[in-house]
Amino acid sequence: MNIAFIIYIIGWVIVVESVAMLFPALTGLIYMESTGLYYLGVAAFFAIIGLLIIRKRPEKQQIFAREGFAVVGLSWIFLSIIGALPLFISGEIPSFTDALFETVSGFTTTGSSILTDVEKMSHPGLLWRSLSHWIGGMGVFVFILSIMPLAGGSNIHLMRAESPGPQVGKLVPKLKDTAKILYTIYATMTFIMFVLLLIAKMPVFDAIITSVGTAGTGGFGIKSDSIGSYSDQIKWIVTVFMALFGINFNFYFFIIAGNLKEAFRIEEVRWYITAILISIVIIAFNIRGIFGSLYECFREAAFQVSSLVTSTGFATTDFNMWPPLSKIILVSLMFMGACAGSTGGGIKVVRYVILFKAIKNEVASYIQPRSVKTVTMDGKPLDKDIIRGVLVFIGAYASVFSVSLLILAANGFDIVTNFTAVVACLSNIGPGLEVVGPAGNFAGFSDLSKFVLIFDMLAGRLEIFPMLILLSPRMWKKFK
Amino acid sequence: MNIAFIIYIIGWVIVVESVAMLFPALTGLIYMESTGLYYLGVAAFFAIIGLLIIRKRPEKQQIFAREGFAVVGLSWIFLSIIGALPLFISGEIPSFTDALFETVSGFTTTGSSILTDVEKMSHPGLLWRSLSHWIGGMGVFVFILSIMPLAGGSNIHLMRAESPGPQVGKLVPKLKDTAKILYTIYATMTFIMFVLLLIAKMPVFDAIITSVGTAGTGGFGIKSDSIGSYSDQIKWIVTVFMALFGINFNFYFFIIAGNLKEAFRIEEVRWYITAILISIVIIAFNIRGIFGSLYECFREAAFQVSSLVTSTGFATTDFNMWPPLSKIILVSLMFMGACAGSTGGGIKVVRYVILFKAIKNEVASYIQPRSVKTVTMDGKPLDKDIIRGVLVFIGAYASVFSVSLLILAANGFDIVTNFTAVVACLSNIGPGLEVVGPAGNFAGFSDLSKFVLIFDMLAGRLEIFPMLILLSPRMWKKFK
Repeated sequence: MNIAFIIYIIGWVIVVESVAMLFPALTGLIYMESTGLYYLGVAAFFAIIGLLIIRKRPEKQQIFAREGFAVVGLSWIFLSIIGALPLFISGEIPSFTDALFETVSGFTTTGSSILTDVEKMSHPGLLWRSLSHWIGGMGVFVFILSIMPLAGGSNIHLMRAESPGPQVGKLVPKLKDTAKILYTIYATMTFIMFVLLLIAKMPVFDAIITSVGTAGTGGFGIKSDSIGSYSDQIKWIVTVFMALFGINFNFYFFIIAGNLKEAFRIEEVRWYITAILISIVIIAFNIRGIFGSLYECFREAAFQVSSLVTSTGFATTDFNMWPPLSKIILVSLMFMGACAGSTGGGIKVVRYVILFKAIKNEVASYIQPRSVKTVTMDGKPLDKDIIRGVLVFIGAYASVFSVSLLILAANGFDIVTNFTAVVACLSNIGPGLEVVGPAGNFAGFSDLSKFVLIFDMLAGRLEIFPMLILLSPRMWKKFK
Repeated sequence: MNIAFIIYIIGWVIVVESVAMLFPALTGLIYMESTGLYYLGVAAFFAIIGLLIIRKRPEKQQIFAREGFAVVGLSWIFLSIIGALPLFISGEIPSFTDALFETVSGFTTTGSSILTDVEKMSHPGLLWRSLSHWIGGMGVFVFILSIMPLAGGSNIHLMRAESPGPQVGKLVPKLKDTAKILYTIYATMTFIMFVLLLIAKMPVFDAIITSVGTAGTGGFGIKSDSIGSYSDQIKWIVTVFMALFGINFNFYFFIIAGNLKEAFRIEEVRWYITAILISIVIIAFNIRGIFGSLYECFREAAFQVSSLVTSTGFATTDFNMWPPLSKIILVSLMFMGACAGSTGGGIKVVRYVILFKAIKNEVASYIQPRSVKTVTMDGKPLDKDIIRGVLVFIGAYASVFSVSLLILAANGFDIVTNFTAVVACLSNIGPGLEVVGPAGNFAGFSDLSKFVLIFDMLAGRLEIFPMLILLSPRMWKKFK
């Protein structure tokens, strides 16, 4: 294990986080709220530690997949612990477990909250929660790789371990350029959304929170009713942008490069849009008794579908009150999630597509054993290892889900609450149903359950294996 | 496609079923109930058709995997339609959809019922329902292969398509002998249980119903409270035998052959027993507020765990009233199911074991890419195709589950009812929770939902692929 390099990378993560904390500190200054000072203090302290660590670059920068996974898993844990400190020290969240839960929920772009009254929070606290969505959405390593002067080609392992999807590759030959392109698209889209929200007459602070929270598909709001009390125009802007941030960023890259043919060849994007449209239509008709007009039904259906399939978790209404068909469709979308290579969570559309192709192939192999074709994706043959990886991933996802559910069950909440609490965290959504529905929160769970859900949020964001590897005794032997 | 041979095989299935129908006919004679005559009539009619079909054996008896799957899928559909006729014609179940649901539930050893008052049924009707469990439990093809004079080695495809588990092989060199051994063990164990029930002072008719229902891990009862009103002694006998019939029959074969070492080397059996014991202990403590003594808690926990893990579905109490932890454990066991090569349903313990080994292997491959070991099972290396098959199976199971759930959701029942109705049918259990709990039934579902559940029961019993193949247009082209 290249431990020197692992520490060096974690040092960079700490520095980046310290810089990010200056934004809530600045917010404190603007609103003249003293909580901002805690962010300044924590930022200063860790900036020094981080700078001491990265002062000297290790000579050996070669890493393997295992270091990639380990460093990403460990970094996200550090990121969360440090990020929780100002919330805890300032007394805004008096329990450290709760502060950690809230911060992990932020960085993993989950948006599940333990706060019983979000409107009591200070401006710096609110900004920090939502900013963590933006940092975690595209990934802290993608950011570091876009600015860090690193030699060697092995850093692709860092990006692979952090970026969602079964196949993570470079858009352009250089990894640094790929990372820069991704962040530029990300920042530009966020900015466009921010401007549109201002035009729709949203207050500036609300627009910042909403645009970074949408971009990271996070979902922390600043009002008890989430997006519910804003204008129709704002609701539609959020609806469309949530869906846009759930699309594979390769799509935008191809669009920008003028390669429309390549962009629309991405099967995942086509399936993603189809699933969204079908779900909206079915739900809109299913809820027609609840709202006054068909337009309202469509608006509400579109918002909630877009919010849950992308794992954002904003809400405009308490969909826990909707009929079972709508709820089951929404929960199904929560499992599926958005596209790989987007900021969204869940199992990812592409894995569903690969699974269905593998099943179809299996059926075909029984019917015509000799004429079995290779599984293709986007017009190219799919490597057998990718298919195996997808199947193992789905199995691992289901296993982590089941074990978490069994531990949570001891809380005594009803089955639907426990079930949707786990999927809401493991797929990085935010709200579930019943007790953890859009009108509820996660405050009632025991500390043990909260730690399980913290693990699930991290496992969901990093796609299971970096977290499983950290649990493996075989890995820890490597550190000795 | 060897269509002549497919028809010939279906002819045999019809003959076997006609003979089986003589038992309810005889029951009608004993109890002097006229419903028995309907069974006699249907039996006579189809015996003639069946005998006409099998009169001449086709010259070409060579079949491939696809014919194996197709003939098994089709045969089970015929078996169910013909089996439903006496229930329908006699007027005991006035709707044909309901009669078909009940019969499929019987043959697939599910035990889900659309009857609102089972105690009103005639003796022939009750016997037929439970006898179908016994026939479907070990499998109609295993039976036919043990008596049918068939040439050629390709009949292993029939057994493979019908027998549960990722690896179906012969116990002894000759397939016919393997089938005979399996049925002998099956019949002997059923008989031992029957005698023990008589010793425990159960009435003869009840003892027949209970022993064949347990052997097939079916679960149709003849009383509204299932096994609830029988003595403690009877409850324990049923508890133990349900668990025994959920064990891989290879285990018994090795025991009989005196090869204890080989028997206890079967990892699946060890995991199965471990899972049962742990579940019983946790549930017994979880429900200690509900029953008077700890003994009662253990008795109830043991019964329900044994009943649901083996997919039998007998009940002694309304576990729908138990705390969430117990219910979630029970639902988890419903997904897992019993051992491969037993009469039980579900995904099967062995697939869980293989899945966990595959995940462990995946984690290890990230940590030490060069020293990846082969996955082993029962001390032998496991073929990669078996692992892939298991993963695809789990994915296919989840897919059929999800699609079924979405269709059922339109019924308007609550989420837990819909969710557990699907798992109860797909894993061939019987009862679920809430509306379809042990005290409820499936009568309230729409006809569309019932057909979905009929498909699920067949798909669950035949392990998905034979049914998926029948849905494939590619397959029907082969018939032309």
